[in-house]
Amino acid sequence: MIQPIVTLTTDFGTSSPYVAAMKGVILSRCPLAQIIDLSHSILPQDVVHAAYFVRDAIPWFPSGTIHVVVVDPGVGTDRQPLYVKVNDQQILCPDNGVWTLLPANNPPEVRCLTNRQYWYAEVSRTFHGRDIFAPCAGALASGKTTEQLGPVVTRWKSIDMPTPRRENDAILGEVVFIDHFGNLITNIPSSLLPETVMQIDVGSYRISQLMKTYGLSQPGELIALVSSSGYLEVAVVNGNAAEKLGSKRGQEVKVI
Amino acid sequence: MIQPIVTLTTDFGTSSPYVAAMKGVILSRCPLAQIIDLSHSILPQDVVHAAYFVRDAIPWFPSGTIHVVVVDPGVGTDRQPLYVKVNDQQILCPDNGVWTLLPANNPPEVRCLTNRQYWYAEVSRTFHGRDIFAPCAGALASGKTTEQLGPVVTRWKSIDMPTPRRENDAILGEVVFIDHFGNLITNIPSSLLPETVMQIDVGSYRISQLMKTYGLSQPGELIALVSSSGYLEVAVVNGNAAEKLGSKRGQEVKVI
Amino acid sequence: MIQPIVTLTTDFGTSSPYVAAMKGVILSRCPLAQIIDLSHSILPQDVVHAAYFVRDAIPWFPSGTIHVVVVDPGVGTDRQPLYVKVNDQQILCPDNGVWTLLPANNPPEVRCLTNRQYWYAEVSRTFHGRDIFAPCAGALASGKTTEQLGPVVTRWKSIDMPTPRRENDAILGEVVFIDHFGNLITNIPSSLLPETVMQIDVGSYRISQLMKTYGLSQPGELIALVSSSGYLEVAVVNGNAAEKLGSKRGQEVKVI
Repeated sequence: MIQPIVTLTTDFGTSSPYVAAMKGVILSRCPLAQIIDLSHSILPQDVVHAAYFVRDAIPWFPSGTIHVVVVDPGVGTDRQPLYVKVNDQQILCPDNGVWTLLPANNPPEVRCLTNRQYWYAEVSRTFHGRDIFAPCAGALASGKTTEQLGPVVTRWKSIDMPTPRRENDAILGEVVFIDHFGNLITNIPSSLLPETVMQIDVGSYRISQLMKTYGLSQPGELIALVSSSGYLEVAVVNGNAAEKLGSKRGQEVKVI
Repeated sequence: MIQPIVTLTTDFGTSSPYVAAMKGVILSRCPLAQIIDLSHSILPQDVVHAAYFVRDAIPWFPSGTIHVVVVDPGVGTDRQPLYVKVNDQQILCPDNGVWTLLPANNPPEVRCLTNRQYWYAEVSRTFHGRDIFAPCAGALASGKTTEQLGPVVTRWKSIDMPTPRRENDAILGEVVFIDHFGNLITNIPSSLLPETVMQIDVGSYRISQLMKTYGLSQPGELIALVSSSGYLEVAVVNGNAAEKLGSKRGQEVKVI
Repeated sequence: MIQPIVTLTTDFGTSSPYVAAMKGVILSRCPLAQIIDLSHSILPQDVVHAAYFVRDAIPWFPSGTIHVVVVDPGVGTDRQPLYVKVNDQQILCPDNGVWTLLPANNPPEVRCLTNRQYWYAEVSRTFHGRDIFAPCAGALASGKTTEQLGPVVTRWKSIDMPTPRRENDAILGEVVFIDHFGNLITNIPSSLLPETVMQIDVGSYRISQLMKTYGLSQPGELIALVSSSGYLEVAVVNGNAAEKLGSKRGQEVKVI
């Protein structure tokens, strides 16, 4: 039998016992599960950060992988706990839209995790990662069917990526994700970029060329390139563009 | 055969090769082990932080799990290396009391890891995680008995949680753990909290109500609630209470 | 069948989806692989930091372990992607010398990962961790031979540890690694240290004795000792020597 793979993505950090408790619960329900940490460094309560993370991480996993994604400022309110099957990936998460940036080839299967039989017996109001999502993931990993977890639902929260727009000769987009290196990932797909000379404006900075990769420019230089996920990216070679430019998510990026 | 599970909890961080070396040693002794990271972000040398972490994390694991917990300012002195079985969890750790906040249903089995046959051949004076605890955990995971590791001992160091006390109408407790979100976890169990209106004083701040969860208040609001481990907690909704209040472990919390 | 072990060492952090994507790719190629995180906290683009990390971590793993080590400021340029077998460890890494501090008992087997059959179909210019190293590691873990990955090469980049030198009565070395605790690890092996009284100068600080371990001195005291990897180390007991001394890698250390 192939080991079921269960991944974890949270904003819990690792200095607190929360992630550890979730791992214990999953392994208690399914001792054969292989647990894979994706991230516990999602910015606190930042569902949008998590959504971009999920979009670029989850599609690379084997078919049927179970992903537990808990960034959950609404824990304990009436927000629903969900099971989502999108393409061939399975996600357990609060209904916060965290999975809705994933490109879906078919309508997703979305269920509400209402079957308390698979929850922890005493559910706290502040830690559904441990008390609902982890035990349901363990149940699924140990062979329960999705039907057993709860009924199909047809309404859920969505997150939308802001759409870049054309304005005369320019494309106006924005920074949607800042990575660990301080690289600025925008919402402008490479397919929108003109073939030849360009000018890229970010704040008061101007970049005059699209490079193929980092190592072709000098350390410290501000460059633009196509990110590994296929979007316009602004970077400082061997440096931190977000710091240098004082950038935040949402900053405008203009391509001419 | 079920994979033996070996968890790791340290204050080693991950930018240094120490945790990696321990994983290598465990897998060299027991290639089938499933290694689970609990934390490498315990505050440096902070055994009390580790003890609260262990208390809330370890009980969730399957029976028989092997936990290696190394926060070890006393490494290389005459402090003993221990094996502890408390309830159905197995812990290998320096004798620093890190396991003694775990509620024990029965007297624990405590052994001293004296059998050098299971140590690394050349033991350094500064890294018993790699040279004693990891190889003994690997031996245990690969089927050695606890008797083989060393003899039972009857004395060990303890950590005590400070006890909250009553003073007239008030309960006086203190902050015992600050989590990744900056939430302040106290030593006041929910069973001690009065049923109705209350006033909670932390430093110069006053909270007038116990909320059920974070999402029922406005972002930025200072609230009190029952933590997921069952103790009074003080939090800022979508914010950081420890920063806002300038709190440290040991700060007094007064409930009226 | 024993699970193949695949370790990961990067400077990618965990707040970005890069490590997660690599794990997905490896598991897609080899669902049985046990993935072990060594570090994702290598200092950004710091190949030297990675090389010391690798030197002290990798030799502890079981024979045949596959190590993916991606610190890759040259990604997308003409630097080669390598497979290296040194002693009984297998390493996939850019040709940046990251493995060359490992003491080799025999000439290493070094290959260039030229066989595009094992790469991801569309290789980005900025993320060979996901598009070349992870899929080749997955191929190897699932039973492909090293011959299939690409041909043997005989030239590669090296990193050299600076050699300590004698000057009259003194040994002059330098700080080569600063660990998570702020301990300063030097390039002076314990075999070079004189048996008796010594004087150790670091910047404007002087230490007059070699201690056996941390816990024999008072908290806050600046001490010298032999590190767990066998080199002279300077530390502050329960404190941070790098902060106290304002040390950086390369700082001179003088032993008399």
